[in-house]
Amino acid sequence: MNKFVYDIPTKVYFGENHLKHLGTEVSRYGKKVLLTYGGGSIKKSGLYDNVMAELEKSGLEVFELSGIDPNPRVASVNAGAEICKRENIEVLLAVGGGSVIDCTKFIGAAAFYEGDAWDISTGKAPVTDCLPIITVLTLSATGSEMDAVGVISNPETKEKIGMGSPLMQPKVSFLDPTNTYTVSRFQTACGAADMFNHIMEIYFNREADLFMLDRVMEGLMKTIIKYGPIAMAEPNNYEARANLMWTASWAINGFLRGGKRQEWSCHPMEHELSAYYDITHGLGLAILGPRWLTYTLDQSTVSKFYQFGINVFEIDKSLEPMVVAKQGIEKLEDFLFNTLELQSTLTEIGIDETYFDIMAKKACADGFLQGFKPLIQQDIKAIYKMCL
Amino acid sequence: MNKFVYDIPTKVYFGENHLKHLGTEVSRYGKKVLLTYGGGSIKKSGLYDNVMAELEKSGLEVFELSGIDPNPRVASVNAGAEICKRENIEVLLAVGGGSVIDCTKFIGAAAFYEGDAWDISTGKAPVTDCLPIITVLTLSATGSEMDAVGVISNPETKEKIGMGSPLMQPKVSFLDPTNTYTVSRFQTACGAADMFNHIMEIYFNREADLFMLDRVMEGLMKTIIKYGPIAMAEPNNYEARANLMWTASWAINGFLRGGKRQEWSCHPMEHELSAYYDITHGLGLAILGPRWLTYTLDQSTVSKFYQFGINVFEIDKSLEPMVVAKQGIEKLEDFLFNTLELQSTLTEIGIDETYFDIMAKKACADGFLQGFKPLIQQDIKAIYKMCL
Repeated sequence: MNKFVYDIPTKVYFGENHLKHLGTEVSRYGKKVLLTYGGGSIKKSGLYDNVMAELEKSGLEVFELSGIDPNPRVASVNAGAEICKRENIEVLLAVGGGSVIDCTKFIGAAAFYEGDAWDISTGKAPVTDCLPIITVLTLSATGSEMDAVGVISNPETKEKIGMGSPLMQPKVSFLDPTNTYTVSRFQTACGAADMFNHIMEIYFNREADLFMLDRVMEGLMKTIIKYGPIAMAEPNNYEARANLMWTASWAINGFLRGGKRQEWSCHPMEHELSAYYDITHGLGLAILGPRWLTYTLDQSTVSKFYQFGINVFEIDKSLEPMVVAKQGIEKLEDFLFNTLELQSTLTEIGIDETYFDIMAKKACADGFLQGFKPLIQQDIKAIYKMCL
Repeated sequence: MNKFVYDIPTKVYFGENHLKHLGTEVSRYGKKVLLTYGGGSIKKSGLYDNVMAELEKSGLEVFELSGIDPNPRVASVNAGAEICKRENIEVLLAVGGGSVIDCTKFIGAAAFYEGDAWDISTGKAPVTDCLPIITVLTLSATGSEMDAVGVISNPETKEKIGMGSPLMQPKVSFLDPTNTYTVSRFQTACGAADMFNHIMEIYFNREADLFMLDRVMEGLMKTIIKYGPIAMAEPNNYEARANLMWTASWAINGFLRGGKRQEWSCHPMEHELSAYYDITHGLGLAILGPRWLTYTLDQSTVSKFYQFGINVFEIDKSLEPMVVAKQGIEKLEDFLFNTLELQSTLTEIGIDETYFDIMAKKACADGFLQGFKPLIQQDIKAIYKMCL
């Protein structure tokens, strides 16, 4: 078991009617605010007006960057950084889901860099500072509201890169489950698949586990299994939206990791799919996840699968470990593809073998993915093929 | 479900060989340090020397307050506050268990108050400021290393009072499981009982639960059940000590609470026992816990007991809820009194009915305890009598 440093200082306002604290929290960091958001759904829902009213009450000067895409692009980061420099922005307010928050993290860092923001994603330019970030979350999925990492895409180079720095950790996040009531059935399902996969990436790991964290992870996975379908069927179900929202944050904020090295497998594979085909991240993960598990299951890994099967899906513990393992994967597929109604193959979403070689090569950076089982290019290609 | 604010900024160094960061962390807050500790066990173990060496390396000026008792007394708080004022102490370093850390929290606050520190415990004097606190933990039990609360005793008035302020939250805590290797078999058991009870106080609650947090709590309770006896049998078992240590912190740092109002039951009842008889807190909780559960079990509360029984103690879920509930309490008693080998009655530890009336009256502050079921003086006395 490795040692670790736990340091998650983000303050979270969870629940309804907390927005009245927004002005005070933003004001702690400055008077000139850049408000970032996506395609305008926050205008339809009324959240934009509520946010603006609170900022106005506190006498803040607000600039705006809208139109941040899902799989946010480096062009948005450059545009945001340009505003920050020109207007001497002091604090960033991201209102949206993971894409908006991720993009805003890079804007915060790029505000202190003179070149192309893509250099920050690639690591060519280290993060030396970052504007303080406050978020108002509208989608339960990526956990970006409580972690220090973001993912940015470059459509020109067909690259999608994740990068992080403690400087990019949000200072304060407002998590109001009612702000996710308008999330579509499909996006709700993708969000559930996304957070489930985050936990799997940590849970299925070669390193020594902390028993208590494994039990916590199983509890969070059970929460997603219970409330994913309820939120799809009853979009205004507060209990379901609240459980999913808080679970998404804890799935990836660093707590579950303990001292384990974090070398994820599904995420690098999925980032290639999104980079080449601009698909929804959670959907890509849903399709890849069970195939990755199937590919990595053998006598050396079966004990973890057994734990997963009996503790998450309540499979009869008296069965042979390998039987439990296989049933666990089947139950997961049933959850993702039947209960959450997500497409189960790449073929269904219009992806064929065309780029499998290059995507597999890039996913492991021409070396190997050090995850639950080390995967080289051929392994990754084989997993992509299992998804057809 | 109530809304809440999540704000746990304590940074934690978890694991071995982190102490080299101690000097840097302390230096962030000042040059003049008051080191606080208990009866000298840290000198025997060598931890004192290691801590002093690190502080010396960073050129810090160190003052000392030793001899802080279990169930720490207000006299120690006053003595510490006096040193802080006289020497212009800038930062407090608590090396010990919950008693040392609790006492240090009050010293930090009392350093800014001119009167008797007891006024802070009673709330007569509000906490207006607090010196920054850093901790090196040596006992897994109270969770004081990651929360903003402390408990102080006044032997003269036979009072033991818990009080908290966000200002008293430790800035940094060093949690090295190997520092608990020397904890005795009995104190290890008391620590396990203490942290288990913290979780029960939150779990058995009348307010609407967040499903995800209930599952997390069950995971933590299972962790204590698994590793309590292992740590007793093998004091140097890193895995056991690590799981207990991290579980103790999370049992009470505020995360599990979600938006539930926190009106605890066993703790006020136990504080009277400790105030009158100076017994070990965890032992008092162990004796009270199952009786409190038995007293509160009825048709209106049975569903929570059912959940507890099947999810924590893996009782057959097809049984009648009331049967599961009773078996769950029996399993808990078996764990506390057989597995952890703790005394099971007040009689065994020399406590009789003498003060039951006055203790029951004080435990509910002459009103009632608003916990899982509201308890008035007569109820509390009845629970004390069940413990004979």
